[in-house]
Amino acid sequence: MIHQISSSPFNNAVEKLASLPGIGNKTALRLVLQLLNRDAAEIEEFGQAFLDLSHQIQYCNSCFNISDSMTCTLCANNSRSNDVICVVENVLDVIAIEKTNQFQGKFHVLGGIISPMEGVGPRDIKIPQLIERISTNKPKEIIMALSTTMEGDATNFYIYKKLAHLDIEVTTIARGVGIGDEIEYTDELTLGRSLLNRIPFQNTLSFK
Amino acid sequence: MIHQISSSPFNNAVEKLASLPGIGNKTALRLVLQLLNRDAAEIEEFGQAFLDLSHQIQYCNSCFNISDSMTCTLCANNSRSNDVICVVENVLDVIAIEKTNQFQGKFHVLGGIISPMEGVGPRDIKIPQLIERISTNKPKEIIMALSTTMEGDATNFYIYKKLAHLDIEVTTIARGVGIGDEIEYTDELTLGRSLLNRIPFQNTLSFK
Repeated sequence: MIHQISSSPFNNAVEKLASLPGIGNKTALRLVLQLLNRDAAEIEEFGQAFLDLSHQIQYCNSCFNISDSMTCTLCANNSRSNDVICVVENVLDVIAIEKTNQFQGKFHVLGGIISPMEGVGPRDIKIPQLIERISTNKPKEIIMALSTTMEGDATNFYIYKKLAHLDIEVTTIARGVGIGDEIEYTDELTLGRSLLNRIPFQNTLSFK
Repeated sequence: MIHQISSSPFNNAVEKLASLPGIGNKTALRLVLQLLNRDAAEIEEFGQAFLDLSHQIQYCNSCFNISDSMTCTLCANNSRSNDVICVVENVLDVIAIEKTNQFQGKFHVLGGIISPMEGVGPRDIKIPQLIERISTNKPKEIIMALSTTMEGDATNFYIYKKLAHLDIEVTTIARGVGIGDEIEYTDELTLGRSLLNRIPFQNTLSFK
């Protein structure tokens, strides 16, 4: 224990904040002291926000995005196509893709990726729900937008196999040299992949 | 708004975390998503810790340290001398000084320092309580252990003036070159001060 304050509500609050990733004991201590400079009502609101989070958080029944209702705003948006489903690991990925303004289909949030090392199997994340959703709705294309890690690849492959019997195109987002990146500083795996998956020059123009 | 999740409990929790100093919107978003990976009961405990903090936090009636009761463990400790009171800005300073094991007196936590820029006057912090405590208890020495800033100096001076009519020695902690610091990299103000306030060599030996 870095501190020796004999106050259990204080120490408990410090401990809770320090349980968050990237927040050490000393930072947590500072943050709680900063909170204590506020009005009691404000500290109460702070705590209440997390009680509300635990009681009221909902997920979309269709895509499992965080939502205020049983259907999230993205799924409820009729101007978005049902023909393309983009499979992502978590909500941060939804936000990142939405910010590109390049995707007008629906999402499917897995809530994790297959990781035998951490004991996460296909049934621990929303893969069965994805298979069922696809079997029912029959979209034209599934875009896999998972991280390029062993776990991401394993998840991609598992889903690809599971969908093989259906007449649905499965694609993954392009891996290659980032926009603005310099060739000489690009790692050899990425550069090699971007050479293998080269595209006709006019295709890059059509996206302008 | 960096994110576009349509969930008010989610957004509210993100906003509360982002209100803490040093935690940006994106970090807050990640932290809340990390929280959501936990059991609902655990998230509830997280929130409850801050409700408890707002309702149950107490300060010592004598030194204004955070405490579980009306008298903190430091003030209740009879082996600590009442003859020396160390005046500090906040609880972090108490912890820092306690870790040195060099102080066996009592503390007085001001809960801030005088800062005209931020509208903090002597009556906004525990200075009146300090004056009253000293007038009643008549300690032999007051050690001022505030930061070496304009605000710290102003606070030192204000308290010094207020105590001038009492027969109490007011000292400040020594400013000088830190243990392990190299002379050539020490800033000139600190080095200058450490020359002015030089001490007999044998005094440094007696502390070993």
